[in-house]
Amino acid sequence: MSKFFSSKFDALEPYVPGEQPRDMKYVKLNTNESPFPPSEKALKNAAEAAQRLQLYSDPECTALVEKACEVFGLEKGEIIMNNGSDETLYFAFAAFCDENHPAAFPNISYAFYPVFAEMNRIPYEQIPLNDDFTINVEDYIGINKTIFIANPNAPTGIALSVEDIERIVKSNPNNVVVIDEAYVDFGAETCIPLVKKYDNLLVVQTFSKSRSMAGARLGFGIADKDIIRDLNTIRYSTNPYNINSMTIAAGVGALSDEEYTKKNCQTIIENRKFTVDELTKLGFDILPSKANFVFAKHPQMDGKEIYLELKKRGILVRHFDKELLTQYNRITIGSKEQMQILIDNLKEMVM
Amino acid sequence: MSKFFSSKFDALEPYVPGEQPRDMKYVKLNTNESPFPPSEKALKNAAEAAQRLQLYSDPECTALVEKACEVFGLEKGEIIMNNGSDETLYFAFAAFCDENHPAAFPNISYAFYPVFAEMNRIPYEQIPLNDDFTINVEDYIGINKTIFIANPNAPTGIALSVEDIERIVKSNPNNVVVIDEAYVDFGAETCIPLVKKYDNLLVVQTFSKSRSMAGARLGFGIADKDIIRDLNTIRYSTNPYNINSMTIAAGVGALSDEEYTKKNCQTIIENRKFTVDELTKLGFDILPSKANFVFAKHPQMDGKEIYLELKKRGILVRHFDKELLTQYNRITIGSKEQMQILIDNLKEMVM
Repeated sequence: MSKFFSSKFDALEPYVPGEQPRDMKYVKLNTNESPFPPSEKALKNAAEAAQRLQLYSDPECTALVEKACEVFGLEKGEIIMNNGSDETLYFAFAAFCDENHPAAFPNISYAFYPVFAEMNRIPYEQIPLNDDFTINVEDYIGINKTIFIANPNAPTGIALSVEDIERIVKSNPNNVVVIDEAYVDFGAETCIPLVKKYDNLLVVQTFSKSRSMAGARLGFGIADKDIIRDLNTIRYSTNPYNINSMTIAAGVGALSDEEYTKKNCQTIIENRKFTVDELTKLGFDILPSKANFVFAKHPQMDGKEIYLELKKRGILVRHFDKELLTQYNRITIGSKEQMQILIDNLKEMVM
Repeated sequence: MSKFFSSKFDALEPYVPGEQPRDMKYVKLNTNESPFPPSEKALKNAAEAAQRLQLYSDPECTALVEKACEVFGLEKGEIIMNNGSDETLYFAFAAFCDENHPAAFPNISYAFYPVFAEMNRIPYEQIPLNDDFTINVEDYIGINKTIFIANPNAPTGIALSVEDIERIVKSNPNNVVVIDEAYVDFGAETCIPLVKKYDNLLVVQTFSKSRSMAGARLGFGIADKDIIRDLNTIRYSTNPYNINSMTIAAGVGALSDEEYTKKNCQTIIENRKFTVDELTKLGFDILPSKANFVFAKHPQMDGKEIYLELKKRGILVRHFDKELLTQYNRITIGSKEQMQILIDNLKEMVM
């Protein structure tokens, strides 16, 4: 760091995104991207919007908000659009956490949560998962902290029921509960309907996974109007034009093509079942995933070894060096062809 | 605000962007946008990048950084790309300001600076301009604060010389000096060459104005490698995938077409001269602008009245209610046709 860097960030350790090597063409199963292109409607809209790129994008994202309200059954004011769901989460840490409202989240979850907490210099508690990598719901009942739960959780893929989440939300009426539903469209159940019932629930979703728009950077938060207003206060104090006009337009297109999204999610769910079945035959232990990835280990092979050997063979999966996780690899569910290549290679490695 | 909003932001008043009314088609001279479309190369690149939108954008912006280094004569590591120059500025306030390094900037300047300071909860000083709206350079010599200066300044359009800026940078070796060059391409002189000489200078620029890409959201910072590394620490702790892949590609295209950019800037400079001449004939007082806007008042007409009457006539300019500024309007320099419409209308109003 430079001599000018503020000492307030002494404890800050930036997030490390999944590797994006450019040395060769990989079968890329490491960052939970979709194997399918975005909707044609999204691409058509983006190209049209590019023609007016000399004008600022609409800071209110009017067209996109209207379309999203229609799709998700919301009123204007109950949703905020952001430059990726990471930005929504960052704003939530800023707005709803401080000395009196420390953050709480599982010790194994999206690795960005502790970074957001450090960046905002707020106290936080990392609550251990059960030994089977499930979240112990009782740990979150009435804890009076600002709670962040990824549902399904990452990198485990394990989902909580809406009933369990409702218990957590209901028991913490003086704190915001943030449910990060980045992976919800692959078989878990969304909490969006609960937003009408509880003023302390913020549901965060993204266009990156099920809508094949990771490169467009578009996420959103759904909550009671007062919470959305607070998030907008943060947005208008950091970057009001946070979403470019091509992405706004692409988002409208994607939401106009929900059939395509559903079909792709269904295919991923089928490919996940195929992958789990084949990996099980090879002796892998796999956590029960509702996401577009699986978290798997093999009793006879070291997790890091598997990762390195796959990489040598041109297949990228995500390995975490963190204790408790090091025997596992997180494997994105891609196309049937990609999964077959993975399995063929693992077969050679394991046999 | 909601009952959950952190009290740490009690003093926060969000930035108010220029109005974007949708009730009718305006001659839009209120947000300093370019009247020219982006380079064809930018549009072609963006359309190609959209085809791979299911993949995350490159967090290192490799292709764009390489192209920018070529254009600006830099080494890799001396530049950071951001989601608009606002984000670069926000990161600079976060990284280089705290209790021991308060911020300092002119009392009349980009209205976002005090918001960024409040958002980061750092002390700041607003240093009065001279009566003629120029910056008094002596006020900034050796003040030992993190300095933010827009050059040319907004909304005045008045520029400092590189010599004056060098004096400020040199006299504050223990603090970062941020020069916000959003409008530099319309006749002012850039400080980029000073970056090789001083480790405490950060130059911020944008693709929004001279490169006609306001809707794409792309800005950048140029500085010593240590400063850029610090800004990346903040970036990787908030939003590593901060720029979408269409915008990254468009940026490469725009930088491959510098002739087009220069031609457009030249046209704006000519249109500015035309506008100043015509407004002067109508009795307006105009500050000497090096930007793609002019700041003008009329001795016989109230500033707000002019703004409101122009709006009624379908012409949008930017009016600030702030004391000292309320007699003025900031008028973006658009196409010759747009400026002619403005002048024809003002003629009717003034006569």
